[in-house]
Amino acid sequence: MNKSTELKRMIQSPTTDYIMEAHNGLSAKIAEEAGFKGIWASGLSIAASMGVRDNNEASWTQVLDVLEFMSDATTIPILLDGDTGYGNFNNARRLLRKLEQRQIAGVCIEDKLFPKTNSFIKGEAQPLAPIDEFCGKIKAMKDAQDNSDFVVVARAEAFIAGHGLDEMLKRAEAYRQSGADAILAHSKKSDIGEIEAFMKEWSNRLPVVVVPTKYYMTPKNRYRELGINMVIWANHNLRASVKAMQKTSRKLFKEESLIQIENKVTPLEEIFRLQNAEELQLAEEKYLTAVPVKNESE
Amino acid sequence: MNKSTELKRMIQSPTTDYIMEAHNGLSAKIAEEAGFKGIWASGLSIAASMGVRDNNEASWTQVLDVLEFMSDATTIPILLDGDTGYGNFNNARRLLRKLEQRQIAGVCIEDKLFPKTNSFIKGEAQPLAPIDEFCGKIKAMKDAQDNSDFVVVARAEAFIAGHGLDEMLKRAEAYRQSGADAILAHSKKSDIGEIEAFMKEWSNRLPVVVVPTKYYMTPKNRYRELGINMVIWANHNLRASVKAMQKTSRKLFKEESLIQIENKVTPLEEIFRLQNAEELQLAEEKYLTAVPVKNESE
Amino acid sequence: MNKSTELKRMIQSPTTDYIMEAHNGLSAKIAEEAGFKGIWASGLSIAASMGVRDNNEASWTQVLDVLEFMSDATTIPILLDGDTGYGNFNNARRLLRKLEQRQIAGVCIEDKLFPKTNSFIKGEAQPLAPIDEFCGKIKAMKDAQDNSDFVVVARAEAFIAGHGLDEMLKRAEAYRQSGADAILAHSKKSDIGEIEAFMKEWSNRLPVVVVPTKYYMTPKNRYRELGINMVIWANHNLRASVKAMQKTSRKLFKEESLIQIENKVTPLEEIFRLQNAEELQLAEEKYLTAVPVKNESE
Amino acid sequence: MNKSTELKRMIQSPTTDYIMEAHNGLSAKIAEEAGFKGIWASGLSIAASMGVRDNNEASWTQVLDVLEFMSDATTIPILLDGDTGYGNFNNARRLLRKLEQRQIAGVCIEDKLFPKTNSFIKGEAQPLAPIDEFCGKIKAMKDAQDNSDFVVVARAEAFIAGHGLDEMLKRAEAYRQSGADAILAHSKKSDIGEIEAFMKEWSNRLPVVVVPTKYYMTPKNRYRELGINMVIWANHNLRASVKAMQKTSRKLFKEESLIQIENKVTPLEEIFRLQNAEELQLAEEKYLTAVPVKNESE
Repeated sequence: MNKSTELKRMIQSPTTDYIMEAHNGLSAKIAEEAGFKGIWASGLSIAASMGVRDNNEASWTQVLDVLEFMSDATTIPILLDGDTGYGNFNNARRLLRKLEQRQIAGVCIEDKLFPKTNSFIKGEAQPLAPIDEFCGKIKAMKDAQDNSDFVVVARAEAFIAGHGLDEMLKRAEAYRQSGADAILAHSKKSDIGEIEAFMKEWSNRLPVVVVPTKYYMTPKNRYRELGINMVIWANHNLRASVKAMQKTSRKLFKEESLIQIENKVTPLEEIFRLQNAEELQLAEEKYLTAVPVKNESE
Repeated sequence: MNKSTELKRMIQSPTTDYIMEAHNGLSAKIAEEAGFKGIWASGLSIAASMGVRDNNEASWTQVLDVLEFMSDATTIPILLDGDTGYGNFNNARRLLRKLEQRQIAGVCIEDKLFPKTNSFIKGEAQPLAPIDEFCGKIKAMKDAQDNSDFVVVARAEAFIAGHGLDEMLKRAEAYRQSGADAILAHSKKSDIGEIEAFMKEWSNRLPVVVVPTKYYMTPKNRYRELGINMVIWANHNLRASVKAMQKTSRKLFKEESLIQIENKVTPLEEIFRLQNAEELQLAEEKYLTAVPVKNESE
Repeated sequence: MNKSTELKRMIQSPTTDYIMEAHNGLSAKIAEEAGFKGIWASGLSIAASMGVRDNNEASWTQVLDVLEFMSDATTIPILLDGDTGYGNFNNARRLLRKLEQRQIAGVCIEDKLFPKTNSFIKGEAQPLAPIDEFCGKIKAMKDAQDNSDFVVVARAEAFIAGHGLDEMLKRAEAYRQSGADAILAHSKKSDIGEIEAFMKEWSNRLPVVVVPTKYYMTPKNRYRELGINMVIWANHNLRASVKAMQKTSRKLFKEESLIQIENKVTPLEEIFRLQNAEELQLAEEKYLTAVPVKNESE
Repeated sequence: MNKSTELKRMIQSPTTDYIMEAHNGLSAKIAEEAGFKGIWASGLSIAASMGVRDNNEASWTQVLDVLEFMSDATTIPILLDGDTGYGNFNNARRLLRKLEQRQIAGVCIEDKLFPKTNSFIKGEAQPLAPIDEFCGKIKAMKDAQDNSDFVVVARAEAFIAGHGLDEMLKRAEAYRQSGADAILAHSKKSDIGEIEAFMKEWSNRLPVVVVPTKYYMTPKNRYRELGINMVIWANHNLRASVKAMQKTSRKLFKEESLIQIENKVTPLEEIFRLQNAEELQLAEEKYLTAVPVKNESE
């Protein structure tokens, strides 16, 4: 079963699935090894790890290069947080073909304008894309896909932009009719209220994905009770790594010694294991049969 | 003062300086904010973060793209762990020019053969580069640099390859005579013995850099007492981040809720701060004066 | 004198200068060797040579990679045809810094919307960017430049979009006041009439650049008489190469022999000369002194 | 039928097939439109078009990016001139997987050392790779391929390196036994003599590919009479384009007018056709239904 088919089944199944953020090959592998069945390639996390902002400062091909490493390092489906598709319908469908080529399982695009701003940054409400334009983008993407199971998730930002349930439903319905495989209903409230209201009216017309970064206090079973198909832990690997790196860097700077550090960080052997160093050693035995070059100075 | 000049002064000063590993723009910024005066762009860490091995699986331009983000995100000098220079003298001098263009302060090259293998991977001793060839590479690099303070560190792997002090001294002296700005004396022993022996005989002919990953039990002041000019904490940001991500991923997978996670990871606002989101908000006020596009559906 | 200073002097001098299109390192070198004092890195040509459309199908960093090769292969200033700056003011100023880093002398941005369409493609008139937004973009770029001579050319597309002289003058003046170093007055008429009308009213308020692709019948001295500062031969290396490659490919396909081809194409030695192969051979003698590896099978 | 299967059939069929050099998406499309059934992605041409030397100055991923554009722009199989595989067996097998992902049909690797030098550059004979090492590389590549028809051509440089027929046959046989799909027998003589001698002794043990750049005087049917399976016109699109660009650039520099140029170069409309501009215009009608943004200044 290819990765797109796996993601599609997961998103369409009535059970609630959880996918984990990753931002490079290493964090993707860690997410898979932890047991997750899917990975969220977060736009924010990828940008932050590069040291740039979540405003399309990295080019879409720079993001694509990161995705290729992530896909190569793992066997589970990856859903890309694809911002606006990095331009209009033509950019978005071109992106889709490049994702398919790299075995990325699906992409989520949001109804904002290029260049995007992170949805949680304080400031004025950001304008949404006109509905018609965004529907055209979804259609173009669905028409462009080669693998019939490639997943296009439409992220509706109506709540984030300050609109009410009516606008949200109107947009979600339009995106559904344009061929989206799922709706990502986004909210920046500290409780899950907006999502609850949406789920009630939406009544399973299409699978729903949520990102509870801001309503993190939601209890474990609530997503399931609401019939949410997929929950994204959207940036927690990145945020865990920042905390650890800040602590370790500060401590090392102060102590000028590794004595108190060595046992608090992952052993080097575990890094080599994550890189699959062993496979190469076996391959060297198999393929590298040439007599080694003489090289000592005598 | 440009970054190369800063690095050169640091490496030439009689005091012991400590520089911190980073592998992307984010970890580089964290190293700078922790107080470090320089950054080690580790080949192992950059490869591992991509999810590939430390055997030149990533191309040299893929590494260069990471370095550009690291340089843009920081103001302190970066010393690249440049493996073998990614080929012969011509590849190495071409690399050097590309590094200068991106304000990387210096590069360390090692006397091994392309493609390289990590020095700490178990297995047969890896052959070293012929001395003459490596000296030619150093000369070519020094002749190619545009900024007279760009730093070329020659990493001597004689101890790693199983040779003794004589070979180490012979090589270090040859590299010095070829124009290297410093010698990185590498050892994989669990104590600092080999380095001590080298320092004694070397007697300050050229600045010395060490990487105490394996002899981490060395006490704080020992580097100083030995007259070592620079100590590299070579992979500890990466190793700290792996530990934190594994723990967080496993916990989230098990708990299916963010409630116990939120306060254990860095707040989102701190991520935005590290990305310098505020500068963009101010810039938008200054430059984005156009009346916003009307976009609600009515 | 750095490349930006050269370009600025050329564009500000009262004489008419001519710059030649190039789309990769090779064509750039050919333009320089032909005698030109500057190069136009055409967006259309770069896209076409890649096999994609002039609608931002290649990412801005893919274009940047081409520019880096062009800059490395030449010593004369390069002016980039930078479309809209590949997004808003923030994308444009980020682009500018990356161009400076690669010794690109200047960039021309146009008052259209991202993603762009080529100005000569038939079809509906393309909407222009709001004046205020475009002025903000120019200001942001001028504020971001590190080299005070870096050149920002504002390309006014009012004529192309079907507007008259008033709109053209209004926009040109606004761009001038926002800090642009020159105005590129664009026209798709088959005669130079629109440009003449503009030059008359504009009366040297800021240097003017033109692209006579469509009004190619304009006689030699006309640009000079009108006081135009710079003329761009915008795509003629590309178009010459297409004609030659189509002819050669067809002939070779038909003849199944090189006999009639060899003397009609550039000798291989000239390709090596253009690549500067000789410098490497001399460098090998200087730096590659190691005894060669024994490798014959015996 | 996928591109690898097409290439494999072509190379295995007893008839002589001819494939044409290309170095970017545009020249690849031109080769296909001229009637060729396959494309040779020349290392020399790709390097030269970038403005660098044929000595692995461009990284392997920079070459890969060019190949991706070439593959996207065409429907016929592409055989990459893959130098030495850009390192050892591990680099070569990694390359192979990346080529498969981009629908490149096959790769030719040569038994030289990394970094390579062009086989026609004058100078000392370049050392060959040890047979065992090169055989290990072939095996590793064949074991790594996912598409069972992906083609690995082993380029034997024994003649180029000054060895005789015995060494050539010994190497070709070893490469055959290691799993190569074809042998590229290379010669820099001005007549086809070495190849004739090889063909006679080889007697069809495996398909043979030749590159008659130097023995261009070979008459049309000679390749067929010798039973050669594939002939590569290895750099003639590039060389045709250089001649045309040099001529056009010099003429334009001298004339300062387009009048005498316009009819000697390809019309702009033909460039747009090669870019498939029409498909986008139709797609815009289909997908871009949103009311355009109001943007004139009033």
